[in-house]
Amino acid sequence: MEKSLIYDHKKKEIVFLDQRKLPLVKENVKCRTFGEMREAIYEMKLRGAPLIGVAGAFGLLLWCFENRSRYGDSNTDKFARDFAKACELMEGTRPTAVNLRWACRKVLESVAGDKSRKIDSIIGSLEKLCVKMDAEDISICEAIGRHGAKYLKAAHGKNLRILTHCNAGALATCGYGTALGVIRAAHEMKILKHVLADETRPYLQGARITAFELSQDKIDYFLICDNMAGWLMKKGEIDVVITGADRIAANGDSANKIGTYSLSVLAHENKIPFYIAAPESTFDLTLKNGEGIPIEERTETEVTTIGGARITPHGAKVKNPAFDVSPAKYISAIMTEKGVIEKPFVKNIKKLFGE
Amino acid sequence: MEKSLIYDHKKKEIVFLDQRKLPLVKENVKCRTFGEMREAIYEMKLRGAPLIGVAGAFGLLLWCFENRSRYGDSNTDKFARDFAKACELMEGTRPTAVNLRWACRKVLESVAGDKSRKIDSIIGSLEKLCVKMDAEDISICEAIGRHGAKYLKAAHGKNLRILTHCNAGALATCGYGTALGVIRAAHEMKILKHVLADETRPYLQGARITAFELSQDKIDYFLICDNMAGWLMKKGEIDVVITGADRIAANGDSANKIGTYSLSVLAHENKIPFYIAAPESTFDLTLKNGEGIPIEERTETEVTTIGGARITPHGAKVKNPAFDVSPAKYISAIMTEKGVIEKPFVKNIKKLFGE
Repeated sequence: MEKSLIYDHKKKEIVFLDQRKLPLVKENVKCRTFGEMREAIYEMKLRGAPLIGVAGAFGLLLWCFENRSRYGDSNTDKFARDFAKACELMEGTRPTAVNLRWACRKVLESVAGDKSRKIDSIIGSLEKLCVKMDAEDISICEAIGRHGAKYLKAAHGKNLRILTHCNAGALATCGYGTALGVIRAAHEMKILKHVLADETRPYLQGARITAFELSQDKIDYFLICDNMAGWLMKKGEIDVVITGADRIAANGDSANKIGTYSLSVLAHENKIPFYIAAPESTFDLTLKNGEGIPIEERTETEVTTIGGARITPHGAKVKNPAFDVSPAKYISAIMTEKGVIEKPFVKNIKKLFGE
Repeated sequence: MEKSLIYDHKKKEIVFLDQRKLPLVKENVKCRTFGEMREAIYEMKLRGAPLIGVAGAFGLLLWCFENRSRYGDSNTDKFARDFAKACELMEGTRPTAVNLRWACRKVLESVAGDKSRKIDSIIGSLEKLCVKMDAEDISICEAIGRHGAKYLKAAHGKNLRILTHCNAGALATCGYGTALGVIRAAHEMKILKHVLADETRPYLQGARITAFELSQDKIDYFLICDNMAGWLMKKGEIDVVITGADRIAANGDSANKIGTYSLSVLAHENKIPFYIAAPESTFDLTLKNGEGIPIEERTETEVTTIGGARITPHGAKVKNPAFDVSPAKYISAIMTEKGVIEKPFVKNIKKLFGE
């Protein structure tokens, strides 16, 4: 399996595919500085909640390499304070996915709690932590896939026609994927008939990235426009909906790519099970429900242009909320690396992930 | 107000804007033959249920001019039989909108029922009928707008934020529009705050044509991607939804551009009134409900490319249903040129339009 991020220890460099150019152009991006990584995350050269978490951690490692020389050997406190500021900056790069915050806080804790007090040793530990987070993210996705596909088989049998939205695949994680991880596992278990992939305007993650991954893996799929999903549910052409998530509150309310809320309502209307697949790092148990989740509003040009070509009159005003929140009441279950969480969510989420 | 179709009596020519190229290029199409008009309708150089009805009628007039010389003076029967075949061909060009069938049958009746039995006189009457249908379509739209906006004011007051889908505007009719006619009238009555226009993939009628019309008329609007509408309803940013229709069954079930079904469900979920605006020619009282409405499936390239640029891997399979059916239970009322039809639809539609 291909990894989404390659860390080159010698060159102190992070390499990944420029996801804006997929599927027709496969071009690598190389990041050597904190600023380059922040820009890559903001510009969505790479995206996906779990992936930007780990990428953010590597970006902070790059900050250390870049700034190491400024601190001499005994200036550990100043180094740690400045590192904390960098963490805060990185955390704010994209607000909705909690995985970025989770990863930034994890590396911050590692730096702040390192007892050695030697800067080089702190950076060495941080490097190990980043590499470990990267590897762990893949095994977490594989576990989500295993649990999810087993659950699907028991609950819905085989020959499943599964709708997914956006890209919660290998390229949204360090590898294998969350929602697409469940779909991959279902394919391996031979319970998948085909996938329906929403194109997912404005950024077209479905048409470009999900379709790319499914093509590569030779998994049968149909690409549809976002506004077709409801009608195909109504016509009985969809058995199951599975999407990823960017932040899940303590009651199960789940933020995900814009359009997911509508799918949850339409699935409920048509009595189709609607699942979320996400790792523990996507849960934000500080939030009672989805109301507190910040929704990122992105630039107008994502809507007014496609592939650089303008599709609407000059001067058109635009709304571009990048995420929405699906209410827990319309979510059938949440597939995680530690098992599938059924209702009641408040109790069962706490049981699995609460302190 | 600009007319969508210009009929040049001297040149025997129909002229209209190529809607595929809007909004950035304003280029006229000129049709002089039946084949050219059929192709223009199929290729969506012009579209919109009421407009393709009238355009289809003019296309059949062009058939007469083209073929007149083949029949001499006494071959009226053969002329009428061949004309009927042309009507059948035209009717099948696009299957979902019933207005095309309505118009074809109207001109067929005129030709078949003409007592003069002189071919030139029959063609002369047909020409007058086409010109009359064109003019009437505009006054019908204006009446829909008047009735609809008055109804909106009484039911929902002012400062309305109205969502519309696809383009049911001047360019979907001979002028003024149906759903956009109501919006125009609401703007004139000063009860409109702004419009939310769904971009309406795959053909982007919203981003291209509705936005073009609203820009021209200086009506305030926001363009959104189709998958954002549900979330904006949930966030309380939409007061009313109004769309056009391509075919309305006797019980009020309404076929319209793909995505409308989802809007009707999402509006219901969020307790937002959902209106259809359409003329009598859109009603198909031979159908008890929406199940019998044929849904046109269009070409893959509409989904896999945007403005000629490919957005997905080569070999991607696609579903592309061009229409869906909104269930009558989710439609609040239907705005027509003879007044606004409230529930119960079966009884009230029959009262207004039944024989």
